[in-house]
Amino acid sequence: MSENALHSWLARRLAGGGERVLVGAGADDCAHLDVRGLTQIAVSVDTLVEGTHFRATDAPFAVGGKAGLSSLSDLAASGCRPLWGVVALTLRRGLGDAYAQEIMAGIIAAAETYHLAVVGGDTTSAASATTVSVTVIGAPFGERPLCRRGAQAGDILVVTGELGGSLAGRHLCPVPRFAEIKQLLTLAPVHACLDISDGLALDLHRLLAASGVGAEIDENAIPLAAAARALAPQSGKTPVAHALGDGEDFELLFAVSASDWEKIARAWEHCGIATRLTPIGRVTAEKGARLITVGSVKELAAAGYEHRF
Amino acid sequence: MSENALHSWLARRLAGGGERVLVGAGADDCAHLDVRGLTQIAVSVDTLVEGTHFRATDAPFAVGGKAGLSSLSDLAASGCRPLWGVVALTLRRGLGDAYAQEIMAGIIAAAETYHLAVVGGDTTSAASATTVSVTVIGAPFGERPLCRRGAQAGDILVVTGELGGSLAGRHLCPVPRFAEIKQLLTLAPVHACLDISDGLALDLHRLLAASGVGAEIDENAIPLAAAARALAPQSGKTPVAHALGDGEDFELLFAVSASDWEKIARAWEHCGIATRLTPIGRVTAEKGARLITVGSVKELAAAGYEHRF
Repeated sequence: MSENALHSWLARRLAGGGERVLVGAGADDCAHLDVRGLTQIAVSVDTLVEGTHFRATDAPFAVGGKAGLSSLSDLAASGCRPLWGVVALTLRRGLGDAYAQEIMAGIIAAAETYHLAVVGGDTTSAASATTVSVTVIGAPFGERPLCRRGAQAGDILVVTGELGGSLAGRHLCPVPRFAEIKQLLTLAPVHACLDISDGLALDLHRLLAASGVGAEIDENAIPLAAAARALAPQSGKTPVAHALGDGEDFELLFAVSASDWEKIARAWEHCGIATRLTPIGRVTAEKGARLITVGSVKELAAAGYEHRF
Repeated sequence: MSENALHSWLARRLAGGGERVLVGAGADDCAHLDVRGLTQIAVSVDTLVEGTHFRATDAPFAVGGKAGLSSLSDLAASGCRPLWGVVALTLRRGLGDAYAQEIMAGIIAAAETYHLAVVGGDTTSAASATTVSVTVIGAPFGERPLCRRGAQAGDILVVTGELGGSLAGRHLCPVPRFAEIKQLLTLAPVHACLDISDGLALDLHRLLAASGVGAEIDENAIPLAAAARALAPQSGKTPVAHALGDGEDFELLFAVSASDWEKIARAWEHCGIATRLTPIGRVTAEKGARLITVGSVKELAAAGYEHRF
């Protein structure tokens, strides 16, 4: 399949355009987008690399889906609704038509689920690994996007869903928490938020460092995914260690004031959203993160997944 | 060097922020950008792959520069001024600190030259080839961005600069034609425009197809780069064949009405812009592209650089 043929297929597949799309995918080197009436946009990019984030044997539709969803998860954590995405796809030579189309179909399916219009991209080929990079643009549900910074001493730290063991399968189909953050923002101001992509411990440290604060985390409060418990006997790690270090949970970690947390906790069960919210600790003026369990306090290192070059 | 260390270096390097940047590089998963008062934006992405667009032995600063400049060239061809860029960098493992920083320094230098603020990115590692993908966002100099489509029968087709032989060196340092397109737009409406990245023949066909028209090109009018003449004796191709097929010229090809072309040609020498404008042919209602030379007319095939998977 040639670049032109793939582009023609994509232009047909994406012919619907989308919200505020004036010139979309395939029609030009640039997409033209209408921003009238918007005050702020948020932009993020995430890359998946064969051999690192997915295996050559993974279904290409699922790989595309994961690429789209992990970028979308950044928008959700910023309290933004999705608007537009552009895709940079570098295909390992020899993978053929069906693979290229399947990877794009996976991205497009993820995009459509969350009303993101894929408005452009670039396709190239490489001798070795496939890489998929999705840039997403969104607009805040509220006045402005949320940040990692902004957590204040006394705030409650809360996570959505359950953590750990994503490699058992959940990592391929992250669920961006748009409904949850949109609902939260109607209930109370969120001081700081991010999505847990590199493990609770490392991402917690990022939120705390950006905010210039510390935290005490209750080890027993961390909500454990069934997969974290299931992997523990084979891995030799505790389920909590999986939750702290595995990454690719794509759950939200956010900080709200203690009084707002009480309000949110009371309202949440009536919101019609099944995703659990769990308070896991408290923001402190003293920096660093301390993991508290019955009768002991220990420093929590900023360990998690980091790329090394 | 770890992902976090590279990010800290980048955050320091990019601490200046930029126009309309509320939350910039390194501070968050998303950049937050002010779009108040803008009506349209244009978005484009371009990827460079080691082994395809650059060699492992090329200086990483130059590779980063080319990545930034080739994306910027798409904005110039759309008649847009640069606003923001995000970078997806996948580094071949083992390249080390200096290489990663040099590639980013090259991107940032290119960005700063054209007032593009690098506001975010994602860095990953791969076992094999390095890939650099730069997404750029701009806003139109005029009312709306320019497109490939819009050329009309009777229009004059014009190119900036000289074509062919970019592989002799020019391909590593493209010059996005911002000053030229901005000046052109003050002189007359531009009906259609693109940058010649895959060779005049292929990109001309793209412009004609998007516009639903054809063209007659005067073979002797095509402005030949010195490198196209220099390569010809070794390559066995004619200089014109280099100009038609080499690609990576990053010159503009645009269509304006015949009367506007006269106006532009008269005004251009007083504009203070050294870049030459050359009329190379005429848009026709009859589709296809015909290459006209003294005493003969031949079909011009849409040949140029295409990635094959």
